[in-house]
Amino acid sequence: MWDKRSDMIVHEQDPFNAEPTPQVLAESDITPVDAFYSRNHGPIPAITADDWRLDVSGRVERPHVFNLDEIRQRFTTHAVTATLQCAGNRRAGLIDVRPIPGEDPWGSGAVSTAEWRGARLADILDAVGAEDDPDLHVAFTGPDVSEVATPPQPYGSSIDIAKARSGEVLLAWGMNCQPLPRIHGGPVRIVVPGYIGARSVKWVTAITVIDAPTDNYFQASAYRILAPDADPGAAGPGDGISLSTLPLNCDVLTHSDGDRVPAGPVTVGGYAQPGNGRRIERVDVSTDGGTTWNQAELDLPYGPWAWCRWTHTLCARPGPLSLVIRAFDDTATTQPETPAAVWNPKGYLNNSWPRMTLHVT
Amino acid sequence: MWDKRSDMIVHEQDPFNAEPTPQVLAESDITPVDAFYSRNHGPIPAITADDWRLDVSGRVERPHVFNLDEIRQRFTTHAVTATLQCAGNRRAGLIDVRPIPGEDPWGSGAVSTAEWRGARLADILDAVGAEDDPDLHVAFTGPDVSEVATPPQPYGSSIDIAKARSGEVLLAWGMNCQPLPRIHGGPVRIVVPGYIGARSVKWVTAITVIDAPTDNYFQASAYRILAPDADPGAAGPGDGISLSTLPLNCDVLTHSDGDRVPAGPVTVGGYAQPGNGRRIERVDVSTDGGTTWNQAELDLPYGPWAWCRWTHTLCARPGPLSLVIRAFDDTATTQPETPAAVWNPKGYLNNSWPRMTLHVT
Repeated sequence: MWDKRSDMIVHEQDPFNAEPTPQVLAESDITPVDAFYSRNHGPIPAITADDWRLDVSGRVERPHVFNLDEIRQRFTTHAVTATLQCAGNRRAGLIDVRPIPGEDPWGSGAVSTAEWRGARLADILDAVGAEDDPDLHVAFTGPDVSEVATPPQPYGSSIDIAKARSGEVLLAWGMNCQPLPRIHGGPVRIVVPGYIGARSVKWVTAITVIDAPTDNYFQASAYRILAPDADPGAAGPGDGISLSTLPLNCDVLTHSDGDRVPAGPVTVGGYAQPGNGRRIERVDVSTDGGTTWNQAELDLPYGPWAWCRWTHTLCARPGPLSLVIRAFDDTATTQPETPAAVWNPKGYLNNSWPRMTLHVT
Repeated sequence: MWDKRSDMIVHEQDPFNAEPTPQVLAESDITPVDAFYSRNHGPIPAITADDWRLDVSGRVERPHVFNLDEIRQRFTTHAVTATLQCAGNRRAGLIDVRPIPGEDPWGSGAVSTAEWRGARLADILDAVGAEDDPDLHVAFTGPDVSEVATPPQPYGSSIDIAKARSGEVLLAWGMNCQPLPRIHGGPVRIVVPGYIGARSVKWVTAITVIDAPTDNYFQASAYRILAPDADPGAAGPGDGISLSTLPLNCDVLTHSDGDRVPAGPVTVGGYAQPGNGRRIERVDVSTDGGTTWNQAELDLPYGPWAWCRWTHTLCARPGPLSLVIRAFDDTATTQPETPAAVWNPKGYLNNSWPRMTLHVT
């Protein structure tokens, strides 16, 4: 049906939900298209570039229906290297604390990085004469109808106008220098760097400038941090904390818990993500459960919206080797220590210290 | 020498460093002037309102020396209710993990809230024609020479121009509807809401628009998060992570660890601080060490720069009563669980979960 690596971990076929192994993500700064994670709430639409239309309306002076040629010809093309991360990434670590019924046990792979290419949403908002009011929101709607939603409805979400007008939010038709593939939202999707992946609406067909966050199920009811004792089945629109910006996070990609490694120098590596508009300053590695720490080497990230890759080489002696990682951003904010500290009923935003034990032989 | 409550906890007389008890802070949203914490690095200058001058220079078109009458007459007066917090607040909790030689063991009281009144720094920058370059910084210098600095020098620090031009940064001469007292920086100080208290320079006599953060000791060398294994005595300018914005934090103010309370309903309370530009969404209280949580009641804070006060009433039965608190901001970011997780050689920014045990009789 579409290109994907045979070693993807498929959580569901319908809707299609799959993540790459951490080791595949570890191989490159830019995730190959066929390894990029897929998170869907409905069937994957099949829209050709010729048939695609985008209806831009709401609080704008000149509502307009665009086709793809028009978008590409009227607006300067911009490229942004951005890491997208599902709010459910690392949920498996939360499920180990307490079960989370009905949600996929995403591991470390619901995060991937691509070079996105397209028009700035800001330029499109200017072209249609979006009203100049800092309290507005911009809603995105796709054609994929989700049966998971209450009631069933097309997938949608919204962002605040300040973010929508920032240079980094794209209406993207390119991914890693190829046309945006259908599986990742092609022909055209929204890319909102720094926000949870759920806001980067795929196959977007409508953009609406509105007075308040959209009442679409995926904005109003899903993707919210509920209180630990809340019943997610009973939660209604507006309950809990709505998710937009990603928190500081990091993970190990080169190894998985329980891996066997030979004694001697071992290089572990992974990524750190600073969260919206921040920068990674330091990544610490502990082999004694967090009592003492060494600093990992950081690669220069591909701009402010891409993950920061880190590596650390240590001398492994035979026996169990415990690894604990934590990152600091440029405000010296760091992460919670355990998944229990951030457990929530829908299992979002596990940004606790990644921990694993390797067996050195 | 100046008005202060007799129950202040004085860490040092020279330079004068003192904090109120948490119970005094618990009494009111706005901290009384005589209970507001004092953090100094040198002697308290005695400058009259008539003698005070402010030299504004650097990358500005019209350098100018202002007196206080001129500031008050030329610029609209603005009031901002802002919580200031010392970067060393709650250091005592870090010292319990590992000693931090040479730094005062601040408890829960190096945080206080006032209504500040003065001119917007943005208006002053406009008046002198500060250059329009987003990479500029604005340095503040006081007359208080610190012997702690290497070499001894007047206290100073700087902030980025975007923050300097924001509406919330004041050149303040009023505190809680009184003239700004000498002990708190009078006749005139800087107030930078959302940043560590060290950036709110007291008795400010010079403002300089410069190309990079100031090389003043208190910006370049002090107030930095060093790696856990770094030797603070050997750290030089630029080492570690420079501190500006405060992280999410919260604390209990009504009670202290070990307090005795009678069985029955007990109301505990304190504050949560969201960090720069964010908002508190939820405060959780656990009486079982963080396994289950109840939500505290939140007061509406006095605007975006003031602490958010919370209370929670529980039924205390005889025996030890453990309390653990955590806050969530509007990005669903929460706090590290233990002080060990954030320990650093200079003991800054302990924003771990506050924990205490009350004895119910």
